[in-house]
Amino acid sequence: MPQLRIALAQVNATVGDLDGNAGLVASWTARAAAEGAHLVVFPEMALTGYPVEDLALRESFAAASKQALTELAARLDADGHGSVAAVVSYLDRDDVGPRDAVAVLYDGRVAATQFKHHLPNYGVFDEARLFKAGQALDIVRLHGLEIGMVICEDIWQEGGPISALGAAGVDLVVAPNASPYERNKDDQRLPLVARRAAEAGAPLVYVNLVGGQDDLVFDGDSLVVSPTGEVLTRLPQFVEHLTVMDVDLPGDAATASGDIEGFAVRRVTLSDSPLSPYPPLPAARVFEPLSELEEMWRALQLGLCDYVKKNGFSSVVLGLSGGIDSAVCAALAVDALGAEQVHGVSMPSVYSSDHSRSDAADLAERTGLHYTEQPIADMVSVFVNQLGLTGLAEENVQARCRGVTLMGLSNQHGHLVLATGNKTELAVGYSTIYGDAVGGFAPIKDVPKTLVWELARWRNSYALVQGHTEPIPPNSITKPPSAELRPGQMDSDSLPDYELLDRVLDDYIEGDRGYGDLVAAGFVPELIDKVLRMVDRAEYKRRQYPPGTKITFKAFGRDRRLPMTNAWREGK
Amino acid sequence: MPQLRIALAQVNATVGDLDGNAGLVASWTARAAAEGAHLVVFPEMALTGYPVEDLALRESFAAASKQALTELAARLDADGHGSVAAVVSYLDRDDVGPRDAVAVLYDGRVAATQFKHHLPNYGVFDEARLFKAGQALDIVRLHGLEIGMVICEDIWQEGGPISALGAAGVDLVVAPNASPYERNKDDQRLPLVARRAAEAGAPLVYVNLVGGQDDLVFDGDSLVVSPTGEVLTRLPQFVEHLTVMDVDLPGDAATASGDIEGFAVRRVTLSDSPLSPYPPLPAARVFEPLSELEEMWRALQLGLCDYVKKNGFSSVVLGLSGGIDSAVCAALAVDALGAEQVHGVSMPSVYSSDHSRSDAADLAERTGLHYTEQPIADMVSVFVNQLGLTGLAEENVQARCRGVTLMGLSNQHGHLVLATGNKTELAVGYSTIYGDAVGGFAPIKDVPKTLVWELARWRNSYALVQGHTEPIPPNSITKPPSAELRPGQMDSDSLPDYELLDRVLDDYIEGDRGYGDLVAAGFVPELIDKVLRMVDRAEYKRRQYPPGTKITFKAFGRDRRLPMTNAWREGK
Repeated sequence: MPQLRIALAQVNATVGDLDGNAGLVASWTARAAAEGAHLVVFPEMALTGYPVEDLALRESFAAASKQALTELAARLDADGHGSVAAVVSYLDRDDVGPRDAVAVLYDGRVAATQFKHHLPNYGVFDEARLFKAGQALDIVRLHGLEIGMVICEDIWQEGGPISALGAAGVDLVVAPNASPYERNKDDQRLPLVARRAAEAGAPLVYVNLVGGQDDLVFDGDSLVVSPTGEVLTRLPQFVEHLTVMDVDLPGDAATASGDIEGFAVRRVTLSDSPLSPYPPLPAARVFEPLSELEEMWRALQLGLCDYVKKNGFSSVVLGLSGGIDSAVCAALAVDALGAEQVHGVSMPSVYSSDHSRSDAADLAERTGLHYTEQPIADMVSVFVNQLGLTGLAEENVQARCRGVTLMGLSNQHGHLVLATGNKTELAVGYSTIYGDAVGGFAPIKDVPKTLVWELARWRNSYALVQGHTEPIPPNSITKPPSAELRPGQMDSDSLPDYELLDRVLDDYIEGDRGYGDLVAAGFVPELIDKVLRMVDRAEYKRRQYPPGTKITFKAFGRDRRLPMTNAWREGK
Repeated sequence: MPQLRIALAQVNATVGDLDGNAGLVASWTARAAAEGAHLVVFPEMALTGYPVEDLALRESFAAASKQALTELAARLDADGHGSVAAVVSYLDRDDVGPRDAVAVLYDGRVAATQFKHHLPNYGVFDEARLFKAGQALDIVRLHGLEIGMVICEDIWQEGGPISALGAAGVDLVVAPNASPYERNKDDQRLPLVARRAAEAGAPLVYVNLVGGQDDLVFDGDSLVVSPTGEVLTRLPQFVEHLTVMDVDLPGDAATASGDIEGFAVRRVTLSDSPLSPYPPLPAARVFEPLSELEEMWRALQLGLCDYVKKNGFSSVVLGLSGGIDSAVCAALAVDALGAEQVHGVSMPSVYSSDHSRSDAADLAERTGLHYTEQPIADMVSVFVNQLGLTGLAEENVQARCRGVTLMGLSNQHGHLVLATGNKTELAVGYSTIYGDAVGGFAPIKDVPKTLVWELARWRNSYALVQGHTEPIPPNSITKPPSAELRPGQMDSDSLPDYELLDRVLDDYIEGDRGYGDLVAAGFVPELIDKVLRMVDRAEYKRRQYPPGTKITFKAFGRDRRLPMTNAWREGK
């Protein structure tokens, strides 16, 4: 069988940074070339970053993307790598409109281009808004081998380009992807890629983006699968990674062109002459996927790290209450940025327990983050006395004085503020808008409370396995949760038991189930009523909440778009 | 020519309120029946409200909508109005998916149904996400006359259902709409409706929704246009309105059915017997559209009013700085809710001018709103001294103490907080997050600063014409704008002249123009650089800003979806 040496360049591109991303493509192509690669494959929209959202509609940006692509082709050649076929995805625009596109750069030119066919427009995706679909397929001939291309969603939908490539005849399919991480999603990828490789009758090279972008994190987890379903390589998750490997290709593909299954198939010859046989590299490594909890931790860590760094910050500040949420956020921040860059502030009020301070101090000592105390009693008393606040108004003003304190420290010292709320709180509105909700980023926004505890336990046991100190104070994990905004207050005064609450929320929010389904699932009507009402009424708070990394099937934000003004109540 | 008495029911439906909206349809059908109407037409999705956003995807909500429709058909019959054909739009769901649908209720039954064909997925619309397109047309025969239906976007796109209805043969087309207001949009409607009436060869009855829903306001402005382009009626803007009128119909339509231009055309007979000639009503009134400035004022007033009331509030509180933005917001609130429901708070700091207080007090006296003073010096000094804040951090803490004050008063007294920022500020980030940006609603969020002044002048002259006191203090209009966060501070210290700034912003934001276009438009590069950089860097603030009524072609929010993490800089 003919061989081909293929490089999978699992890079972390930054949205809008055409210069930086072009530099990334150039340097990784050089690395691939140094290892003798004939073909290097980058993720979807590696040149522009992904998702660019409405930047796709701006003509000046599309023009800049196209120009950057042309310049990049010349640069690769000037660097001496013109004979390495580089598969680079970018934003194109033609008379029809903007295109999610992929190009093959070869010999100093843009040798072939193709547009994405299936445009996802569900969940977090708005591609029907942004792009026009392609109906043409470019198959390039490299060393006499036929290489077809598809982009991301093109492999997630039945039928379409893969089937047409199989009918046309290809020796290899490359698939640039930008597939955001969510819990359990990597379990779907491998069988999917294997099915598509079988349909195409050729190995499939799946290269996924890595890195954080606002609410999304891309996990990498790139793959090569043979047409018989054998995993030839699997790249690690949540890190940039280059794999260079030799793949045996059939070399006997048909070379049909023209209209095939509704696609305009064009053949583009880069080089006709077959490679002479050469000693292959050892088999490429197949990295094992991470455990479910580690995977989520790394997703949150990378999402946080990239939001901070790609927005030009180096340090963060957050309130430390001694509770589990702020402890987990702090531990994530320390993992993401290093303890030196993390500033924790304990802000006790007159209602704060002793353990709120001692647990916060314990966290600081375990992790090495910067720790200060700023009591809020004086601030609170001015507002309470001058405005005559009582009850809930008095509770909220405490949270808001903490918010003003953190924002003041942020403005004074240049740290990004982290909001420490979890998904359960955000769902039921158990947070103070402009209080504990302030922040540039909310690391555990999409983590249900029960999962916050699980992650804390996982992180501590991981530390023990590594021979390190457990970062999270055991007392923060085991003590009953409290907002401490009035004497003796406990979360359980206002909320159902978290185990039960998270099960209802999972059905209502991720499952989008109605009242009847929830009753059928065995929840009592009073509980359903109470929880659903809290969720529905808190939509306005969620709209003003900072972004945070999506890790579940359905995160708050563009994944779940509900009106604020909404009289619909399930069960009525 | 055969006559038909048609009622246009321009109602204000509430999203999710199936019971309330069904009640609205029943009572307005009764009013139409009392005036002898044979046909009554309601706006798009009158039964569910519009837009329902992701509620469209929830099976329980679609099922409830379908059930409410069936019950409503029976109720109209039980009320004695079964022989009035009621065109009621609703959310349907079948095996294919959710549908934006319209039904004809007659004789106690759902006699005909049809699904929207063109699904808008640009600007504020996400209908490709939410609905599946229909490819069938139901034409109902009422008193021997053939009545076809289309829904909203079906008339905005060339080709499609209108052309098929024309080919099939109809005597009348009815078009339920939910077309959100934006500046100058009503200028497009009339020629569009006229063109479609000509294509169908029949009068077209266009009934648009009225009312506010989160960021959107629907202006009504319903129309009937003859096939020769004559405007037979035009309803007033921004108010609920019932028009009952006699329309002469051709009565000689072909009655083709089956596959016509790709649509499955079905004929449904409600009643065959022609009406005996009867004395017609006098010609219906053609309301003149409002002037451009009044139109915008009424849009903002209704958007604010409906957000407050549909969310269960009756009163609002806002900070009064003596400046133009808070004065216009207060005047809008007084127009929307009555002075009794508006609470203005002057919150002077040590840097506040004397006129900041006297102008605020003047505003209160002119409008009759509730006025109090809450100096913030004590609050600010605790934060500044305890945290050691200087410079920008000290400026921001003043704005944030005002935010905490307003939220405290809101929590204590149950008022909704209004944020008073304008579109120009929001564009360039000239506001303090969690400070002046706090609020449940931001009435002038989509109003550029120069337009704020124009609206203020318009409102005052309108008052004079009405013989009322000018609500806005002339000094608030004429004095140079200042945030008053440090001694002698003026907006012009940090920002270009507002006239110039708003022209750049209009090109960059509404026009989505690039650097080259802006240079070609005659702006100097340094100005372009400065403004665009401010806009790009403020995206994170806009994400956490409260909702406000869209009045321009492109509002911040779902109309303009840009990444926060975004390294793209025009002109680089």
